[in-house]
Amino acid sequence: MNRRMVLNTVGHIILAEAALLLLPTIVSVIYLEKCVWSFLITIGIALALGLILKFASRPDSKLIYAKEGFVIVTYAWVLMSAIGALPFFLSGEIPNYVDAFFETVSGFTTTGASILTDIEAMSKGLLFWRSFTHWIGGMGVIVFVMAIIPNIADRSMHIMKAEVPGPTVGKLVPKARETAKILYLIYIAMTIVMIVMLLFGGMPVFDSIVHTFGTAGTGGFGVKSSSIGGYNAYCQWVITAFMLLFSLNFNLYYLILLRKFKSVLKSTELWFFLGLVVVSIAVITYDIHPMYTSFSETIRTSSFQVATIISTTGYATANFNTWPSLSKAMLLMLMMVGGCAGSTAGGLKNARVVMLIKTVHRELKKLLHPRSVRAVSMESKRVDEQTLSGVTSYFAVYVMCVMGIFVLLSIEPFGIETNLSATLACFNNVGPGFGAVGPIGSYADYSIFSKLLLSLAMLLGRLEIFPLILGLNPLVWKRR
Amino acid sequence: MNRRMVLNTVGHIILAEAALLLLPTIVSVIYLEKCVWSFLITIGIALALGLILKFASRPDSKLIYAKEGFVIVTYAWVLMSAIGALPFFLSGEIPNYVDAFFETVSGFTTTGASILTDIEAMSKGLLFWRSFTHWIGGMGVIVFVMAIIPNIADRSMHIMKAEVPGPTVGKLVPKARETAKILYLIYIAMTIVMIVMLLFGGMPVFDSIVHTFGTAGTGGFGVKSSSIGGYNAYCQWVITAFMLLFSLNFNLYYLILLRKFKSVLKSTELWFFLGLVVVSIAVITYDIHPMYTSFSETIRTSSFQVATIISTTGYATANFNTWPSLSKAMLLMLMMVGGCAGSTAGGLKNARVVMLIKTVHRELKKLLHPRSVRAVSMESKRVDEQTLSGVTSYFAVYVMCVMGIFVLLSIEPFGIETNLSATLACFNNVGPGFGAVGPIGSYADYSIFSKLLLSLAMLLGRLEIFPLILGLNPLVWKRR
Repeated sequence: MNRRMVLNTVGHIILAEAALLLLPTIVSVIYLEKCVWSFLITIGIALALGLILKFASRPDSKLIYAKEGFVIVTYAWVLMSAIGALPFFLSGEIPNYVDAFFETVSGFTTTGASILTDIEAMSKGLLFWRSFTHWIGGMGVIVFVMAIIPNIADRSMHIMKAEVPGPTVGKLVPKARETAKILYLIYIAMTIVMIVMLLFGGMPVFDSIVHTFGTAGTGGFGVKSSSIGGYNAYCQWVITAFMLLFSLNFNLYYLILLRKFKSVLKSTELWFFLGLVVVSIAVITYDIHPMYTSFSETIRTSSFQVATIISTTGYATANFNTWPSLSKAMLLMLMMVGGCAGSTAGGLKNARVVMLIKTVHRELKKLLHPRSVRAVSMESKRVDEQTLSGVTSYFAVYVMCVMGIFVLLSIEPFGIETNLSATLACFNNVGPGFGAVGPIGSYADYSIFSKLLLSLAMLLGRLEIFPLILGLNPLVWKRR
Repeated sequence: MNRRMVLNTVGHIILAEAALLLLPTIVSVIYLEKCVWSFLITIGIALALGLILKFASRPDSKLIYAKEGFVIVTYAWVLMSAIGALPFFLSGEIPNYVDAFFETVSGFTTTGASILTDIEAMSKGLLFWRSFTHWIGGMGVIVFVMAIIPNIADRSMHIMKAEVPGPTVGKLVPKARETAKILYLIYIAMTIVMIVMLLFGGMPVFDSIVHTFGTAGTGGFGVKSSSIGGYNAYCQWVITAFMLLFSLNFNLYYLILLRKFKSVLKSTELWFFLGLVVVSIAVITYDIHPMYTSFSETIRTSSFQVATIISTTGYATANFNTWPSLSKAMLLMLMMVGGCAGSTAGGLKNARVVMLIKTVHRELKKLLHPRSVRAVSMESKRVDEQTLSGVTSYFAVYVMCVMGIFVLLSIEPFGIETNLSATLACFNNVGPGFGAVGPIGSYADYSIFSKLLLSLAMLLGRLEIFPLILGLNPLVWKRR
C-alpha cells in the first residue's frame, strides 16, 4: 500500500471541496444570510486539513494500484461528507451532527433522502450547497479532481474505475485525464442547457439552478416540501426529460459528438432502458388513471414518477405512496434496476441487468447442450468471462447487503413496507420510499444508529460495494 | 426429443399416483366418509390415463438426455397436481377446481399455502390426502417411481437431477435406482420414528400421522386452524426437531449409516445451517420476550417459528404476523435461505448461499490481485466453475422470478407486505407469510389469476426454476 500517495490524493480532494464550497458562500453573501460564517469556517478547516495531507505526505512513488484506488475513494467520500456536513451543523440549521452527516452523504451519493421536515425554513446558501453536493457527487468528485489536476490524473485509471458506476469503465480516450475532462464538459453543457430551459418555463433563477443540480446528479433535493408538484406542466416535463437524459451512459453523448450515431443506436443497454421506461409508464398510467381527471395529467404524473424512480433522482409531483399496489411494486422494481452504467444514476444499472439476463439465458442453453461453449455479447462486443463473473458476484453481494441492512434496519418499529423501501431507496440512491419515508415523509424519525446505517447503505450503493468493503478493510492498509 | 419415452415415463408416474391414492381411500373407508367416491373416481381416471400413456407410447429407445428429464418432471408435476386436485373438487369440499388445484400444488410442492378457511370442516380422508401429498412431494414422486420400477431407474440420472433440490445431486451410489431406494428407506424410517414419538406425547393417531407427513415433506398442512398451537410443549419440540432434521441433506444420514461421522462433521453446509438457526433463535427470543410470560415459552415459540420457516414447513404455534419488525425481517430472510440441498425443504438452500458468499469473497480477492487464480472449495472439495456459474445464474433467475411474480401479484390490492410475503412464501415453499396471508390468514381472497400465478411460483420454487422453464418451452419439444 502506497500510503503517502493515498493521503496526498485525499488531500487534493479535500482542497477541491474547499474550492467548491466557495459557490454556496457566494450565494449566502448575495442573500445576506448569517450562514456565510459556517461556510467560511468549513472552508478554513478543509483548507487546513487538505494542505496538511498534501504537504505532509509527498509521495515517494507515483504508483497507484487497484488497492490504492479503493482506499482513496473510500476515505475521500467519507471525509468529504464529514466536512460537507459542517455548514449545516455550524449554522445550527441542522442541530444534530449525525443528521447533517446523513443529509450530506445523501447529497454526495445523489440519493436525496432527507431528514428535514421544514425545507422552506432553510437558508438559501445551505439549500444551494445541499443540491450542489448532488451535482458534485453525480459525476464524481475524484473524476473532477482528475480532470483539473494533471499529476494525479496521469497516475492511473484505478481511481476512476472505483468511482464511476457500472460493470465496465468506458475509456473514451486512452488517457484517464482526457476522459474525465470530456465527461465533465458534457456534464456542464447539459447542466447549462437545463437551467436555461427551466428559466424559459418561468421557474425562478435560484430554483432553476438548484433543481438542475438535483436533476443532473440524479439526486432529488429541492427547495419545497411539495418537491416539483408546485411548478407548471412545462417545467415538470423538462425535468422528466433531463432525469432520463442524465441516467443514460455519458459515452453515448461522446459518440453523438463524434457523429457516430449508428453506434449509439446499437446500444443494447439504451434500448433495454427505454423499453423499461415505456412499459412502466404505460402500466402505471393505466393503473392510476382513475385517480386523475385528465389524460394529460395522468401521463405527465406517471412519466414523471417513472423517470424520477428509474433515474434514482427522487423528485416527486405526486404522493406515489397512495398509489395502487401494482404501481408501487413497479416503482420498487425500477428502484433496483436504476439508470445506465456510466451515468449519474444509481441502482444495479441496466447494463448489469441485461448481462444477468444473458447469463441466465446461456445457462439454460448449457443445460440442454452441456458441451457447447457460448460467449455473451453486449453492445455488439463479446463480454469476457471475468466481467460476467464480476456482474453475477456483484448481484449476489448487492442482494446480501440489501437483506442485511433491511434486517438491521428492522430494529426500528416502522414495519416491512417502510423499512424495506427505505433500505432500497437509500441503497439505490433514490431517496424517497414508501410508508413513513414516502415522498411527503422524511427520515427524521429514524434513530442515530439507523441514520448511520442508511448512510453506509448510500455509500455502498454509490460506490458499488466492492471499493468500500476493500477500502474499509484494515488488511488492505497493510504495507505490501 | 424422445417423446415416447417421455409419455411412457409420465404414464408410470400417474399409475404410481393412482396407487398412492389408495391410502386416503382406506382412511375415508375407516371413517365411513362420503368422499370415498371421489377418491375411487380419481383412481379410475388416473389408472385409465396412466395405462393409455404407458401402452400407447412404448418407447423405441431407452435414451434419456437432460432435455427429456426436464420435460418429464414438468409434465409429471403439473399432471399429478391436476389429478390430485380431483378428490377435493369431486367431493364438493373445495367447490372451485382452481382452488383445489392450488391446494394440491401447494401439497406436492410441500408449500402448505392453503385456501381453506375452515379446516376442521374437512373430512378425514381429504385431510389425510392433503398432508400425504407433502410426504410424496418432499422426496419427489419421480424418485419414488425410480426406486420401485427397475427399467425406468436404470435409464439415466437426468430425471433425478431435475427433481432433487440443490446445486449438485449427491450420487450416494453409482446407480440412480439404488440411490433413490436408499433415500426413500431413510425417509420412511425417519417418518416412522416421528409418528411414534408424537404418539408418545399423547397426540391422537390420525393427527400424529398427518403432522408427520407435513413435517417430513416440510410442507405444513395440518388439521386445525390453530396449526400446532393447541398441542403440548413436548409435541411442539418434537416437531421443531424433526422440521430441522428433515431440512438437512439426506446424504448426511447415509454417511451416518456408514459410520462416516467425520465426513458429517466436515460439512460446511451443515455448520452454516446450524449457525443460522442458533443465531436466529437467539435474536428472535430476545426480540419477542416481552410478549411472552416465561422463558421456556419464549424459547419454545421462537425455536418453533425459526424451524418452521427455515425448513420452509409452515406450521405455526404463534401468530408471528404480530411480532416486532426485526423478528419478521429475520423470518423473511430465513424464508429465502431455506433448508439444505438434498433435503425436502425449499428456499435457495444453504449450500447455494455458502457458495455465493465464497464466490463474492473470491471476487474481492480478485480485485486486489487480478492475476491470481483461486478455486472455491466446499465440503473440503474443489467446486468446479461450471457449478459455481450455475449457482450465481440460479440466484439471478431466482431474484428475477420473485420480482416478476411480485409485480404481477401486485395487481391484487393487498399491499406490499402481503403480496411480497405471499410471493416469497409460495416461491420458497414455506406457506404462510405476513399480512392477509399470515399464519391465521389464508390465500382464499386471491383471484383465480393470482392463485394460478402462485401455483406456478410454487412449482418454480420446488423444481428450481430451470427444469420448468425448459420443460414448458415448446422449442425443447421439437424433434432433434
